[in-house]
Amino acid sequence: MPTAGLLIIGNEILSGKVVDTNSPYLAGELRRLGVDLERILTIPDEIDVIAREVRSMSDQYDHVFTSGGIGPTHDDVTIDSIAQAFGREVVCSESLLKRIEQGQNKPLNEAMRKMALLPEGATMIDAGDLWFPVICVENVYIFPGIPELFRKKFDSIRERFSGVPVQLTRFFVTRYESEIAEDLHALLRQFPELMLGSYPRISEPDFRVMLTLESRDPEYLQRAVDALRSMLPADVIRRVE
Amino acid sequence: MPTAGLLIIGNEILSGKVVDTNSPYLAGELRRLGVDLERILTIPDEIDVIAREVRSMSDQYDHVFTSGGIGPTHDDVTIDSIAQAFGREVVCSESLLKRIEQGQNKPLNEAMRKMALLPEGATMIDAGDLWFPVICVENVYIFPGIPELFRKKFDSIRERFSGVPVQLTRFFVTRYESEIAEDLHALLRQFPELMLGSYPRISEPDFRVMLTLESRDPEYLQRAVDALRSMLPADVIRRVE
Repeated sequence: MPTAGLLIIGNEILSGKVVDTNSPYLAGELRRLGVDLERILTIPDEIDVIAREVRSMSDQYDHVFTSGGIGPTHDDVTIDSIAQAFGREVVCSESLLKRIEQGQNKPLNEAMRKMALLPEGATMIDAGDLWFPVICVENVYIFPGIPELFRKKFDSIRERFSGVPVQLTRFFVTRYESEIAEDLHALLRQFPELMLGSYPRISEPDFRVMLTLESRDPEYLQRAVDALRSMLPADVIRRVE
Repeated sequence: MPTAGLLIIGNEILSGKVVDTNSPYLAGELRRLGVDLERILTIPDEIDVIAREVRSMSDQYDHVFTSGGIGPTHDDVTIDSIAQAFGREVVCSESLLKRIEQGQNKPLNEAMRKMALLPEGATMIDAGDLWFPVICVENVYIFPGIPELFRKKFDSIRERFSGVPVQLTRFFVTRYESEIAEDLHALLRQFPELMLGSYPRISEPDFRVMLTLESRDPEYLQRAVDALRSMLPADVIRRVE
């Protein structure tokens, strides 16, 4: 299955000034597409750190997504960092410059010109109804941090990323984890390929643990779901979704 | 200043089933305390991956916090991983076992006994009104993933972590980033130690960019705030907070 890493670039997240909503969004989308997100990493706006982590993720995963640090101000260093990661120069894209000019009624200042700088050999993907393309270098897709734009840009190219989606069934149970741990072990012995998660909750009025049963094989999942149903007493299972 | 890394352990976050609220919480708390959070990393419930990252963070930062993966079920592997990270055995803590027994009216099963397993030589910190101590190995503090407990546990030991808090002033401005980028450069030339962030917003009715000015030196910050006020036309500054 295809794998992915997500790099969140931004002092504002690390300092608690802004809540990162791009990670949960992308995690959910990749899951639906069948891509395994293996790592989410949040780091500061520092070129050397970003370059090192981009390169490492690019080597490890099929797809890498970056969020943030693109724009016209001093703290936007993602393009420079990705160029450094792959040993490329930063060059001005004439075609991008032309687009930026067309969107303005006045001569471009230096800050606007910065928006046309790209790592040499970067790919521009035009898709959706966005005037600005998605920029891609090797297997790294560069997204803006602004949540509305992050989503639009990902949506515009989402069909590029697909694996076999994971099927999910949730059990909500009324016992403590320690009371059902043995049953879960028994279930895994019977279904070793099952992805089984157990998540206690303390503020839910009607259940104590959410169990997640997952598999890419719907028939295998169904057999595991049936097995767990028959293992647990009926009054322990609040609901199955 | 003290530095910190945060390790979020959990397939449920990477697969988009659960939203991580512990990161934004801890980021905000550490900022208030004056500790620099330099990295947030989310990884799966895999012993080798967790052990490697714990060790790397422990070497790089003053404090490391982990969230998740402690508990009685098969997918709780944080204790084993941290033991591996530091080359320690996992041993049963008799004092912890006694506490667990006292909380139960019945004999402990294997899953409950698992809650008393710790890396050899781990420190137990009793604080707040929690019956279960905070576990610490070297500079690594082990927290549960359940948000209510994560917060309670951090709160109970927060006075251990303190630096010089960062002072923050926000400007909300009505121009685009590209129109103020030059002013920001000029401000940084005058105040090279200033932490200056620029965050465009596209769905706010009354401003286009949030600027954050930060420093640990309140007097330095005030001079930078005054300088920026005099640089930008009055009608461009919607408000300052």
